[in-house]
Amino acid sequence: MKLAKRLEKLGTETAFAVSASAANWAARGNKVYPFHLGDLNISTPQSIIDATIKAIRDGHTGYCPGAGIPQLRAAIASDVGIKRQMTFTAEEVSIQPGGKPVIGKFIAAVMDPGDEVLYPNPGYPIYESQIEYQGGHAIPYGYIETATGFELDLDAIKASLSNKTKAIIYNNYQNPNGAQSSTKEMEALAELAIANDLWVLSDEAYYEIQYDGEPITIANLPGMRERTIILYTCSKRFAMTGWRLGAAIGPKAIIDIISKFNTNHESCTTHFIQQGMVEAISSEISGPAAIMDELRLRRDAAVAGLNAIDGINITAPDSTFYLFPNVNEIVALKGYEDVNQLMDEALVKTGVSFCTRKHFGRAQASENNHYIRLAYSGIEVDDINEGLGKLKTYFEAS
Amino acid sequence: MKLAKRLEKLGTETAFAVSASAANWAARGNKVYPFHLGDLNISTPQSIIDATIKAIRDGHTGYCPGAGIPQLRAAIASDVGIKRQMTFTAEEVSIQPGGKPVIGKFIAAVMDPGDEVLYPNPGYPIYESQIEYQGGHAIPYGYIETATGFELDLDAIKASLSNKTKAIIYNNYQNPNGAQSSTKEMEALAELAIANDLWVLSDEAYYEIQYDGEPITIANLPGMRERTIILYTCSKRFAMTGWRLGAAIGPKAIIDIISKFNTNHESCTTHFIQQGMVEAISSEISGPAAIMDELRLRRDAAVAGLNAIDGINITAPDSTFYLFPNVNEIVALKGYEDVNQLMDEALVKTGVSFCTRKHFGRAQASENNHYIRLAYSGIEVDDINEGLGKLKTYFEAS
Repeated sequence: MKLAKRLEKLGTETAFAVSASAANWAARGNKVYPFHLGDLNISTPQSIIDATIKAIRDGHTGYCPGAGIPQLRAAIASDVGIKRQMTFTAEEVSIQPGGKPVIGKFIAAVMDPGDEVLYPNPGYPIYESQIEYQGGHAIPYGYIETATGFELDLDAIKASLSNKTKAIIYNNYQNPNGAQSSTKEMEALAELAIANDLWVLSDEAYYEIQYDGEPITIANLPGMRERTIILYTCSKRFAMTGWRLGAAIGPKAIIDIISKFNTNHESCTTHFIQQGMVEAISSEISGPAAIMDELRLRRDAAVAGLNAIDGINITAPDSTFYLFPNVNEIVALKGYEDVNQLMDEALVKTGVSFCTRKHFGRAQASENNHYIRLAYSGIEVDDINEGLGKLKTYFEAS
Repeated sequence: MKLAKRLEKLGTETAFAVSASAANWAARGNKVYPFHLGDLNISTPQSIIDATIKAIRDGHTGYCPGAGIPQLRAAIASDVGIKRQMTFTAEEVSIQPGGKPVIGKFIAAVMDPGDEVLYPNPGYPIYESQIEYQGGHAIPYGYIETATGFELDLDAIKASLSNKTKAIIYNNYQNPNGAQSSTKEMEALAELAIANDLWVLSDEAYYEIQYDGEPITIANLPGMRERTIILYTCSKRFAMTGWRLGAAIGPKAIIDIISKFNTNHESCTTHFIQQGMVEAISSEISGPAAIMDELRLRRDAAVAGLNAIDGINITAPDSTFYLFPNVNEIVALKGYEDVNQLMDEALVKTGVSFCTRKHFGRAQASENNHYIRLAYSGIEVDDINEGLGKLKTYFEAS
């Protein structure tokens, strides 16, 4: 009566251990500054709450189609299309309980055991976990630090391609490093995908989290629509992380397969949440703009607070709610070998809780930089200022 | 840019095609009597609705732990324990978006490719789909028709056991045939599971749907607690099919793995639905009793209506909301070879929509009986009487 052997390949989000440490530290009477959370401490827009409550009261409590209710599939097809200057039909949308389910279902739809899938590392750790658990080879690609942020390591991507490569996972606007591709960089990636006949999972969880400029999607480049599946989620844009509502969007053939996985995994996504969302997504609601206003204030405070620390120098990213400063100088000053020592010490000395590069996929042998990741989605401006002030004192102490 | 080869092994619920046919027939202006649905057209108890709305308004809209909020894990542990004369801790409960996710996650936790898993056939079709999709061998076991219902084919189960058998899936109170084990039968099954060191998935989706007598669980037999995972769902008991709330309950080691799959698949189950359910499940609410009162009226009407048909003779099952009459004589009278011809004709001639044995796993070579499945969860008494009256006329016509 043993457990399955292949569980050895199943990964997880190790960042949950950071949450647990922070909670333990707080439970012992300490003030914690939560920069580790990818969650938002901002309310879901009232119009979405009202529409959902109406949907419950109206009795939308029974099963609904595995692919989602037709009205929401159509509403998301329209909204996602408009915001990307593209056209999608309802049949090209499969509703999901969040954005995350799209990762495993995409991989299951395109990858057989032994196939290779390229994925960003540092990146969201479930990519690596799902590729490997499902029997594939997870081939990491990294980012190169520039004067103002990060760019794709396109040479490494080229060098990693083989005749076993089936797909590439691309997360523009990126967690954890806030990277965003220029049009030129995106075109170069698209060229590789087309030349090597790859499927692309475009994780667009942060597509709408933009402080300046207009977002772009790889799905809208020539030759890409037919090979790209967009991971869409309501979680960040509408501060709906705990609601669990998202979608896979792409060619009908693969969307049908993803919906077949819905029937196998969870029957359907909560009916009344879908019903409530129809109205919200179909109308221009003020909620998302208010969320962005708040996030912008936090971003500016967090960037200023970090740049005030000797040895840290970052540029404010134009998207996401993450900062990924290089802390080589701090680590050297402390004489640490492991960036997680800095994380552990910072919590105890200052109450500031954050993740590190190590929570975003297995570090590659070639890496010699140290990074920490601070999320400002779950902490307000006053606490950002206070926490980063304490962090400055600690980081600068030899 | 091909899709994955192993998708060939992925099954689905073919009963959805029956829903589609019924909807098409209705859309053409015909009255449909929906006996095909495993859904309930009964409202969720008001106290659950009220508690959930309060939870939304109170801001339980962010992420929560992948295994579920501690209060709901504790509440379900307590409730499931009391109703089974057992004791469970919160750590032995993993909250799920419905009962269905437990099937795939249980199989993934205990089965490696090449292993064998026994499953009921006729039975819920996702068992077969998930065993095969995940690379196992799905070994069916059937039921023997008795004077008053169905009993497990224990000899067939014994004969099917091999050194590759890792687990058995057991659905007592059964969909589609309404079978329920005597204590003696359940003990015999437990003996086989223990002697062969098997894991057991006890699908208890209909545990609380009881018209007479008290339900029993295989988890509570000696030697079974440590090898049994209970599939629990709020769907049927509380008329919450579209809410998507359930749980896996069993030994902590396997529950931890199932929760790790949660982190990989869907992050967490909708936060405010969990919060709202805490109160409902912790208190004695009147809703479930009212649901059972209504279902009992429907059961009695449906059994009477079927027994009024020449060639059909069934006993009212004490549980579930399904009837699985043998229609050998009707099929013979019509001169059909395939029971699905009866289904197709019945819809067009009478508007009565139902599933057949063929929607519940691949028929086994040894089978020579024809069965149809009627669910009375989604149709009211007047329509049951009217629909079965029409069915009588059609079934009895040569």
